[in-house]
Amino acid sequence: MKTIQLGIIGFGTVGSGTAQVLLEQSNRITRRTGVHIRLKTVLVRSPRQLPPEFADVTVTCEPEDLFNDPDIDIIVELIGGIEPARTYILTAMEHGKHVVTANKALLSECGMEIFKAAARNNVEIGFEGSVAGGIPVIKTFKEGLVANRIVSIMGILNGTANYILSQMTEHGLPFAEVLKDAQQKGYAEADPTYDIEGIDTAHKLAILVTLAYGVEVKVDDIAVEGISHIEALDIDLAREFGYRIKLLAISHNNGNDFEVRVHPTLVPESHLLASINGAFNSVHIQGDMVGDILLYGPGAGKLATGSAVTADIVDIARNISHGAINRVSCLSYLPEFIEARKITPISELKCSYYFRFTTLDQPAVLATIAGILGKFNISIESVIQKSNHKGKTVPIVMRTYGAVEASVVEALAEIDKLPIVAAETVKIRILAQGD
Amino acid sequence: MKTIQLGIIGFGTVGSGTAQVLLEQSNRITRRTGVHIRLKTVLVRSPRQLPPEFADVTVTCEPEDLFNDPDIDIIVELIGGIEPARTYILTAMEHGKHVVTANKALLSECGMEIFKAAARNNVEIGFEGSVAGGIPVIKTFKEGLVANRIVSIMGILNGTANYILSQMTEHGLPFAEVLKDAQQKGYAEADPTYDIEGIDTAHKLAILVTLAYGVEVKVDDIAVEGISHIEALDIDLAREFGYRIKLLAISHNNGNDFEVRVHPTLVPESHLLASINGAFNSVHIQGDMVGDILLYGPGAGKLATGSAVTADIVDIARNISHGAINRVSCLSYLPEFIEARKITPISELKCSYYFRFTTLDQPAVLATIAGILGKFNISIESVIQKSNHKGKTVPIVMRTYGAVEASVVEALAEIDKLPIVAAETVKIRILAQGD
Repeated sequence: MKTIQLGIIGFGTVGSGTAQVLLEQSNRITRRTGVHIRLKTVLVRSPRQLPPEFADVTVTCEPEDLFNDPDIDIIVELIGGIEPARTYILTAMEHGKHVVTANKALLSECGMEIFKAAARNNVEIGFEGSVAGGIPVIKTFKEGLVANRIVSIMGILNGTANYILSQMTEHGLPFAEVLKDAQQKGYAEADPTYDIEGIDTAHKLAILVTLAYGVEVKVDDIAVEGISHIEALDIDLAREFGYRIKLLAISHNNGNDFEVRVHPTLVPESHLLASINGAFNSVHIQGDMVGDILLYGPGAGKLATGSAVTADIVDIARNISHGAINRVSCLSYLPEFIEARKITPISELKCSYYFRFTTLDQPAVLATIAGILGKFNISIESVIQKSNHKGKTVPIVMRTYGAVEASVVEALAEIDKLPIVAAETVKIRILAQGD
Repeated sequence: MKTIQLGIIGFGTVGSGTAQVLLEQSNRITRRTGVHIRLKTVLVRSPRQLPPEFADVTVTCEPEDLFNDPDIDIIVELIGGIEPARTYILTAMEHGKHVVTANKALLSECGMEIFKAAARNNVEIGFEGSVAGGIPVIKTFKEGLVANRIVSIMGILNGTANYILSQMTEHGLPFAEVLKDAQQKGYAEADPTYDIEGIDTAHKLAILVTLAYGVEVKVDDIAVEGISHIEALDIDLAREFGYRIKLLAISHNNGNDFEVRVHPTLVPESHLLASINGAFNSVHIQGDMVGDILLYGPGAGKLATGSAVTADIVDIARNISHGAINRVSCLSYLPEFIEARKITPISELKCSYYFRFTTLDQPAVLATIAGILGKFNISIESVIQKSNHKGKTVPIVMRTYGAVEASVVEALAEIDKLPIVAAETVKIRILAQGD
């Protein structure tokens, strides 16, 4: 029986999780593939002992022990971040090692460099664990939906942000309080910026869009807005209109150009994405042949991500044992067909909006606001004017028909300068019913 | 560039859909794989012309024109039913042709014969289109979740049944009326037995269970109950308890034995499967490493199923061009590891139940019924006793704690003999919250 040997870089959450999956599923993988996959070496930063079940695994602090070991076929990078992960992966490839990684930040920042190095060295690079944890979404784009032009992608790709929004929705609590609780429970990092400001979601969306359309995407070109300004009041009011607020990664393939953006979104209750709660992830994909597909599952976690990383390892092991390296192009399209296509500027996009104006309780306020919106061709679909309970200000909540982003920005700037407007207007985009 | 040539058997809904997908996606598939896939020949029952876009495709009524054509690499069977599909597939394999099919009835009845023939002739058999239409569920079991022991499967696998239940729920209409409407709209066959009695769902579940656990499943061993006896009243009452009624395919992997059954089920509103409406399909999978995964998409349709069939064709084309035939075992496990394991008899299963008793409006009715249930160790969780609006009978609706099926059958037999009980008691199983 063929044995494929691995080195893992990093023994943190995902590294130790992958080692555990490999150990527990070893027999099953052999019964499925006829191949024995063996974890030979783990690279750690400082000397340490692994748990006793890994007694036959070598531990080293010298990267060369992995790169120079002719027994090692696949190197699995699970330390995250840009450096030294980037250098490790490039060096591994130069040594003819196949690579598996779950490093979305690295792939979205330096992906093309890594994919080119893989092609140059005729090695594989697997990265199923980099997006949506245990959900086999990368394989779905590259293989399951191979006979589709992908028309759109909408995803809940960050479990922390979704957990926070779900808790705010369920318990009517303010953002700061839920975040603190999530940090105490380990659902949010001490510095939660990446998760709550949409940056992590943008990294993942960049990877999916590249696979889906065969285009290069620079993360800096993605319009990103996070959830830290979402108030419990907006969640409640959105519910009155029949929506849930979700942090969505959204991309539409418009042919010559494509949209790619991350922002809080009012999702109609009838849409499945509105029902994705807690730390789960979900990806909604529209293909021109298949129609609507949705995948759902754990977006993170030691064993869930370990399951995805191991699926990549098995895929490469199958290819090694069948002499079929790069059977599936790592970017879904062959490298020569990856295009540089234009991203539609968000200012040009048309979208329905939820506005919450904070106004003084005076006559003709609504007329004044509606007048300015009309001047910018923004049509109002419905309005809720809340009665004044206590304070001097009243919220006016509005849902618009499709309006151009640039006009919305200009109109709100003008409205927010009015003396009758007491605070910056909240604007949240609404997912169209047909999406 | 390598060209892979196909013959398609049958040019009905899925056959013509697959031809259309191949035509429209031809360039895309080449840009993804470096392979050109060409539809060379279509086998039809009686002479006919194909639409003009297929002018370069040969049409024949002679099966030998496919089997004996050395140019044809893959034969795609899309006529459905047992014969002549079975003979065509076996003959194709004996001629060294790879096979793709969407024929769930054939695979669930004669699967082992076909899989053995594939192994004997060293050809591939792809069948992604046989379960859940366009959803890549077969690939998910065989590859995406390869590093998991599958713990349970729950699926909405028949679009017709789900459409009927959704319409009954949404509009409060009786079964017969919705079925008639579905037939007029083309959502249900003239003879809807396969769909509404759960037989089609059982065929698909048998395929999934084989892949998931590596076991042989005989369709006749699956406990099957359809939806034709579900009344609008039960849907309403279930809703009062916080449930939706769905026709579910359910399987649990209990180690030495496994459960496999199809029946209407009360699904808690908070469960994603409760939100799957209309003709869509969905599969909920629990893996020991990954946790809960759900896939959703179109369960049928010309192009959606064509997308799945074409994904199989591309997979095989990649294997041919890389010399990697049978890179992934067609049954997910290698043939020597497919076991014959025992199915747990449904009579031994423990489950919560919804009961609707139709009783005469007399005192002590509830006490009598509760007494009999208690005798059979069936504990009541909650009761709704409806006030008598018009007739002489009153419904008593009950939710039980977990009870053994055999005891439930005995208890209801005794209850239904009581003079105070005016009609056969309705019993519907309830999905446990943790599932």
